[in-house]
Amino acid sequence: MNTWGTLFRLTTFGESHGAAIGGVIDGCPANMDIDFSLIERELARRRGDNINGTTDRKEADEVEWLSGLMDGKTLGTPLAFMIRNKSHRSDDYDWLKELYRPGHGDYTWQQKYGIHDHRGGGRCSARETAARVVAGAIAKQILQQKGIAIASSCSTPEFDDPSDSYGGTVLCKIDNVPAGLGEPLFNRLPAQLAHAMFSIPSVTGFEMGDGFRAAEMRGSEYRDEWNADFTTKSNHCGGIMGGLSNAMPILFRVALHPVITVKENLPCIDQKGNSHIIKEVPGRHDMCHVPRAAVVIESMAALTILDNLMLFNLNR
Amino acid sequence: MNTWGTLFRLTTFGESHGAAIGGVIDGCPANMDIDFSLIERELARRRGDNINGTTDRKEADEVEWLSGLMDGKTLGTPLAFMIRNKSHRSDDYDWLKELYRPGHGDYTWQQKYGIHDHRGGGRCSARETAARVVAGAIAKQILQQKGIAIASSCSTPEFDDPSDSYGGTVLCKIDNVPAGLGEPLFNRLPAQLAHAMFSIPSVTGFEMGDGFRAAEMRGSEYRDEWNADFTTKSNHCGGIMGGLSNAMPILFRVALHPVITVKENLPCIDQKGNSHIIKEVPGRHDMCHVPRAAVVIESMAALTILDNLMLFNLNR
Amino acid sequence: MNTWGTLFRLTTFGESHGAAIGGVIDGCPANMDIDFSLIERELARRRGDNINGTTDRKEADEVEWLSGLMDGKTLGTPLAFMIRNKSHRSDDYDWLKELYRPGHGDYTWQQKYGIHDHRGGGRCSARETAARVVAGAIAKQILQQKGIAIASSCSTPEFDDPSDSYGGTVLCKIDNVPAGLGEPLFNRLPAQLAHAMFSIPSVTGFEMGDGFRAAEMRGSEYRDEWNADFTTKSNHCGGIMGGLSNAMPILFRVALHPVITVKENLPCIDQKGNSHIIKEVPGRHDMCHVPRAAVVIESMAALTILDNLMLFNLNR
Amino acid sequence: MNTWGTLFRLTTFGESHGAAIGGVIDGCPANMDIDFSLIERELARRRGDNINGTTDRKEADEVEWLSGLMDGKTLGTPLAFMIRNKSHRSDDYDWLKELYRPGHGDYTWQQKYGIHDHRGGGRCSARETAARVVAGAIAKQILQQKGIAIASSCSTPEFDDPSDSYGGTVLCKIDNVPAGLGEPLFNRLPAQLAHAMFSIPSVTGFEMGDGFRAAEMRGSEYRDEWNADFTTKSNHCGGIMGGLSNAMPILFRVALHPVITVKENLPCIDQKGNSHIIKEVPGRHDMCHVPRAAVVIESMAALTILDNLMLFNLNR
Repeated sequence: MNTWGTLFRLTTFGESHGAAIGGVIDGCPANMDIDFSLIERELARRRGDNINGTTDRKEADEVEWLSGLMDGKTLGTPLAFMIRNKSHRSDDYDWLKELYRPGHGDYTWQQKYGIHDHRGGGRCSARETAARVVAGAIAKQILQQKGIAIASSCSTPEFDDPSDSYGGTVLCKIDNVPAGLGEPLFNRLPAQLAHAMFSIPSVTGFEMGDGFRAAEMRGSEYRDEWNADFTTKSNHCGGIMGGLSNAMPILFRVALHPVITVKENLPCIDQKGNSHIIKEVPGRHDMCHVPRAAVVIESMAALTILDNLMLFNLNR
Repeated sequence: MNTWGTLFRLTTFGESHGAAIGGVIDGCPANMDIDFSLIERELARRRGDNINGTTDRKEADEVEWLSGLMDGKTLGTPLAFMIRNKSHRSDDYDWLKELYRPGHGDYTWQQKYGIHDHRGGGRCSARETAARVVAGAIAKQILQQKGIAIASSCSTPEFDDPSDSYGGTVLCKIDNVPAGLGEPLFNRLPAQLAHAMFSIPSVTGFEMGDGFRAAEMRGSEYRDEWNADFTTKSNHCGGIMGGLSNAMPILFRVALHPVITVKENLPCIDQKGNSHIIKEVPGRHDMCHVPRAAVVIESMAALTILDNLMLFNLNR
Repeated sequence: MNTWGTLFRLTTFGESHGAAIGGVIDGCPANMDIDFSLIERELARRRGDNINGTTDRKEADEVEWLSGLMDGKTLGTPLAFMIRNKSHRSDDYDWLKELYRPGHGDYTWQQKYGIHDHRGGGRCSARETAARVVAGAIAKQILQQKGIAIASSCSTPEFDDPSDSYGGTVLCKIDNVPAGLGEPLFNRLPAQLAHAMFSIPSVTGFEMGDGFRAAEMRGSEYRDEWNADFTTKSNHCGGIMGGLSNAMPILFRVALHPVITVKENLPCIDQKGNSHIIKEVPGRHDMCHVPRAAVVIESMAALTILDNLMLFNLNR
Repeated sequence: MNTWGTLFRLTTFGESHGAAIGGVIDGCPANMDIDFSLIERELARRRGDNINGTTDRKEADEVEWLSGLMDGKTLGTPLAFMIRNKSHRSDDYDWLKELYRPGHGDYTWQQKYGIHDHRGGGRCSARETAARVVAGAIAKQILQQKGIAIASSCSTPEFDDPSDSYGGTVLCKIDNVPAGLGEPLFNRLPAQLAHAMFSIPSVTGFEMGDGFRAAEMRGSEYRDEWNADFTTKSNHCGGIMGGLSNAMPILFRVALHPVITVKENLPCIDQKGNSHIIKEVPGRHDMCHVPRAAVVIESMAALTILDNLMLFNLNR
């Protein structure tokens, strides 16, 4: 279940404070040159280098390639990679051994597995998303060669209280997707994109095109009328008709709830139900994670669009 | 790709004006009595019997069971069923042979497959959702036996113009789901629910709990603090922590765009790019489909929750 | 689990004495003409029309198409079909309600599901294979257009005792498969073929090329040396190198155990462990099923080769 | 496609002479202690320590665990591990850059991917099977706790010519499997086992129970008659009835062709079709690989039986 995709498949592994995180990419086309510098730049975006309001756990994210490459070219065999977790400060998390924080997976993972890695969120830490960014960067390269470009912009509330935390929204735009991508019915393109986005920690909302505003509109206003060249006069639907891409820009918006853990006075509960207030929370926590999440959002979009492009080509 | 689910799997088939629509349910527990009257009641809800603003194609939806049952009990083998399409008025759709409507899949399906069943939307007609309702009703029965209940409520704009059409939102609530359901990471419970909901025609938005409003909140406000009995004082997160259920009510909201086709003056385009205005659109079209969609939303939720319950029990 | 294939997928349903058997084909290319007469001829082969030693349950096998076709052309949507079970003589099987026969699934299915359709073998009757033959005939048509041909020949012991039953072997040959088909490593082409063949009732052995004889050979004898045109001087390996096709004829052999049920003196056991001898077994039973199985073997081979051809084209 | 299993899933990666080989196990039960010494013993069996006729590439096979464990206990998250390829003598293989050997995947992989790692067989080297043995040892531990035991015995021809190579057969026996394991119809238990075995390099034959001998038998001879305790008087069927286990010992036999590469006078072909005789073949090659293959066969059997046991428990 730790696998994404049908033909271009990513399996990720790793806990925040285990030996390493990483992934295995299965189904990557053979005989392709990897642009390792793009991977580095995308990982730097995810680390939030030079972004205000992000944690100072600035690990180098050195990607070690374990398989699937010969002389920098893909072999068509599984591409395995890992990033070692260098910044081990697990003792920062000793206080968490017996506590459940609000909003985190501490309690629910314990209920599911009967065991939970309390160190830094363990498997459900956002650190796992680095593996998605590596795979996403490879998908982006393949898409770029087809002229398909993915970009995003962030919107956050004003950071008006330094002892508090914030969320926000990310608007993502995908240009030059050919008409007809997507797999009806259960795997309509927006269904796959919604799935991809909600697989990212902190995501609470997803809308295609006008989204929730569309629920307030009339049909005569919402429908996107055709031009003679099969573009549309408006793009309320965000580039999707009948579940498939229509060659207009694909537009979707993702909502992220605020960072849960704030530095001071965190109300927790122990396994017996007693409440505890953590006056000063150890460890490093972003004030706002939205800019860092943007590259993860783009990466999941790239994996999803590439997978559908490969499925689409089957019908050609 | 016309299959939903991992352990409780539904494959649907059928076009709006073909011989029949139907489905195959694989993985249904054996030795179970089917409550056929619940299936009938759910299908009546989907038909919109007695609801204002819905089409008068009121087919009987007679479900014929083809396999998987002996003396009304499930055998553990595939449950196949079909509903014949009685109300064949395909000639209503001759005008559509050469035209692409706005907002529909006419153009995109043609681009994907090089062929498209123009009669009543063909495969991407909402008629296919009847098969989901049949399977969803069976899933609901199994969930009910575990005490899990699914309900929904609709919200629509005022129908202030009789020649126009409308969308709306559906709020869905699932009670008594145990803590720990969901499959990290790519199949977090909200990711599966988002996927399920966006697989329904006309859906343009999905939010868990506070959803897009959460993007405007502060962490200190959003986090749901614990009570001593492991319930939470608030439910901003909609019953999900770390991607898994936390035993609080699961709450999500779905947005549907307005019905695309209105009765008069529909602007279309032909395959050469010439525009056409259809003054009076033949066929039957709802003014608002939100109440009918609600039962489909509940059905997809039931299929998703049951599948996760079966996966959850593997860990017990 | 009642589904076969990755891109060209067949889901079958139906019990021997239920309402119908049938299937749903998902992933069939769009805009293709179906040769219905080939389907009929293949079904006639499976029925054993004009073959000695086969049962006289000669049902017409009328295939009814439920979806996926418009004017005889595939739409790219699921192709659903069914064959009604006309020859209902379920009371032939009343004696089986409380008994487990030797060699059949009566006991094991009861252990798995807690319920079992005793009528004619229920789901594990070979009647289900008619659905595979329908789908296989469609796969054969697509392969034929690429020049790929599948044929088989049978070998059986002499039928020297009319009150007894027999098995045999089927040698299958596939010509003109391009080099490179198969998915390493877990889905090597022979692994998929072996899986396909052992999914057929009564199969007890499978060998590629020289098979078990290869275990007795020396390397210098077994290895197939190259000609200058990349054919090989011998074909001990049966057209497979490194798990992938090498463009030589693919050759494999399948063993089938004898028909289990003979007409007289069948030793059974009831659910309390008491033994019973059925002096004259009601119902119809082949003396030898090998010629009928041959078309099922070809059908499963066609489904498997087509699926791999579609996967192979992804890499082109 | 480099993934095995439905609920207990193994994804492997790595080329023979790349940085590392390894795997990701997804779906392993949580809160379980791993017996690392069993893994070591099984890897020693695969290396052929102390077995005549095997290569002297005796790598230590140091397994490094990357994720999924905390204090030696499984977390329920993906278990990732790798074994570095220490014994890099890639220059042994420079002669192979332009040549296709007989019987190997050199030519077919080049046809599939347009690129092939010639060093030691690359991905289709038997080295990859070490990852299966690691995962298989974990599966064996879980099965042992349920009383299920897997064992095998080898049969090889006499090694009567030291400049030549040999194959053989492995008989595998699985005791104490409960009745009812397997997933009808396409995933009957023998179909899954056949698939598993043919995914192992060099396998050319597979038979359940009496296998090919059953094709020569009469029904009255082959059928396994019941005892009063639901055991059977004989076990011709190898523990399988109707595709499911019947609680008798599961018995199957696997044939392996001889090692292809012999030390002297290997006839190859280059990419232009010119033939070459390699007088002395560099690198290390077993004279017979059957004893080493036995533990891989047991490992694949363990993965398959465990996966089916988990699926079986869903019906309980």
